Amino acid sequence: MGEFSIIDRYFKNIGKSRQEIIEGPGDDAAVVRMGNAEWTICADTMVSGVHFFDSQDAFDVGFKCLAVNLSDTIAMGATPVWAILCLTHPDGNEDWIGRFSDGFHELAEKSAVSLIGGDTTSGPLTVSVTVGGQLYGPPVLRSGAGVGDIIFLSNTVGDAAVGLKIAQGEYEASEMDRKACLEKLNRPNPDLSYVSPLCKFASAAIDISDGLLADLGHILTASGGVGAKLDLSTIPMSHAAKNYLTSNGQASENWQTILSGGDDYILCFCVPRNQIENLETQFPNIQLFRIGEIVEQTGIEVQNASAGLILSQRTGFDHFTKNEL
Amino acid sequence: MGEFSIIDRYFKNIGKSRQEIIEGPGDDAAVVRMGNAEWTICADTMVSGVHFFDSQDAFDVGFKCLAVNLSDTIAMGATPVWAILCLTHPDGNEDWIGRFSDGFHELAEKSAVSLIGGDTTSGPLTVSVTVGGQLYGPPVLRSGAGVGDIIFLSNTVGDAAVGLKIAQGEYEASEMDRKACLEKLNRPNPDLSYVSPLCKFASAAIDISDGLLADLGHILTASGGVGAKLDLSTIPMSHAAKNYLTSNGQASENWQTILSGGDDYILCFCVPRNQIENLETQFPNIQLFRIGEIVEQTGIEVQNASAGLILSQRTGFDHFTKNEL
Repeated sequence: MGEFSIIDRYFKNIGKSRQEIIEGPGDDAAVVRMGNAEWTICADTMVSGVHFFDSQDAFDVGFKCLAVNLSDTIAMGATPVWAILCLTHPDGNEDWIGRFSDGFHELAEKSAVSLIGGDTTSGPLTVSVTVGGQLYGPPVLRSGAGVGDIIFLSNTVGDAAVGLKIAQGEYEASEMDRKACLEKLNRPNPDLSYVSPLCKFASAAIDISDGLLADLGHILTASGGVGAKLDLSTIPMSHAAKNYLTSNGQASENWQTILSGGDDYILCFCVPRNQIENLETQFPNIQLFRIGEIVEQTGIEVQNASAGLILSQRTGFDHFTKNEL
Repeated sequence: MGEFSIIDRYFKNIGKSRQEIIEGPGDDAAVVRMGNAEWTICADTMVSGVHFFDSQDAFDVGFKCLAVNLSDTIAMGATPVWAILCLTHPDGNEDWIGRFSDGFHELAEKSAVSLIGGDTTSGPLTVSVTVGGQLYGPPVLRSGAGVGDIIFLSNTVGDAAVGLKIAQGEYEASEMDRKACLEKLNRPNPDLSYVSPLCKFASAAIDISDGLLADLGHILTASGGVGAKLDLSTIPMSHAAKNYLTSNGQASENWQTILSGGDDYILCFCVPRNQIENLETQFPNIQLFRIGEIVEQTGIEVQNASAGLILSQRTGFDHFTKNEL
């Protein structure tokens, strides 16, 4: 049974429904009214051997466990304020914990987030972080995408997935590409400058953690079963990701790495067509990669205009339908 | 290196100090101003094989991982409102997760707490819960105890520690005592009716998770190095705990089980002498076990008036000084 079915079956509607809870489980973060303000609360767990390598530099682990939660918070249009850290470590090794603490601190300070508490216990290496973020407008949910809205990304996709291939010895990259991709994999860098533009102009948003196609799919489903049409030639990719594709002959499974690989921690968001000019005028300094639009027909259709190819994915988001390429 | 030194050295002053943060790490919960209200945020982790038995009924695990956080929240004088759950489970076994969810739900519903989100991942069985609680007055900290204040407990101590002895086969109890102590160990039941009395009258409070002497010690240290004088004959104990002491000849190490055993999840709090009548008048329906008073001399002195014994603990809270009994 997958994670989403477990949450749906066993962890929805648990406890008392309360008027303070604006949004419960199911989006990037919950939304709670506290006093006269609305706050987002989200949490993510990272397990050694599952989400990071046992041998990983603890600095990266400390950095990333906060980063993934900041990414969720920003995707809601909220400004992260505080974090709670639950760290389980086998032996309390001080070198490891010192490096971990340094990594956490570096990103927390840079993002103006305060570590306010948590728990340290003995046990298998596991990190859970909870982050509270303040909303200065209505939350940006996954559910607001409308037909005709334009789909944007905030940054390049696929680098972290290529980084994982490199780390696992499945792809040999140049030293420069190796460094760039591992940096993206190990130290994702959520960009706070998107909070205001999302709040003001996005109809829907999500942070990409499980791959572009899967996470865009969550927007489509939450928005009442609309679809998306993407143009492959507009997908923003780094040189390293392009090199990966080229050196592998642009085979379908390598496009899959780029479009369905996880750990990007960038933003995917939709903006109503008539708001785009305002968005661009008011926020001239943020990157806006236009990759497609919301359409009526369900599923995701990925067109490759330059090559005249169509790669369709209408039946779900778990698998790429290779034979349609 | 112990948990408290790790927190002091590596997890204090991490990230940005922000004006919203009223209390950072170090008390039962952090205190954050959110909008025009103050909220407590706390978190606790439970690890299989460390905090509960691998064979434990998952209902108990679900119940207890919320209970320990409600206990922290109440000890701050706050009313718990929402919870975040991070569950790592090796195989997503549905029987286990269903029972766990039922246990969590039972206490959440009873306590009017709403589960608003979290994360489920694959890995070694570990549960981290974060709870947010609303404050309707100033938080009750550990640091406010003053010389002359009277020390109270909200309930009997030692039952959970005796329960652990029973579960580990170190003590053979009657069937009735066994049941009572295991219930206390596995399903601690934080009492929300103490929130208002603590808010109104307590100068300091803590929830007892590491044993009465250790946790009272945290109050004494946080309150500027005052001490406590307790009367052993007034320590509230259940029949089961008394039977444990009697059947073991009241030896010092068995008193240690009662006074230093963990997992009680009851409240220890101090009330200024001149407020006690008001407390008793305004809250006639809560249990108040008066066990001693705050004194100037540091450390904890435990007197046994009836037996004319003095058991002194002036050097720290990690060990009971057996030879002084």
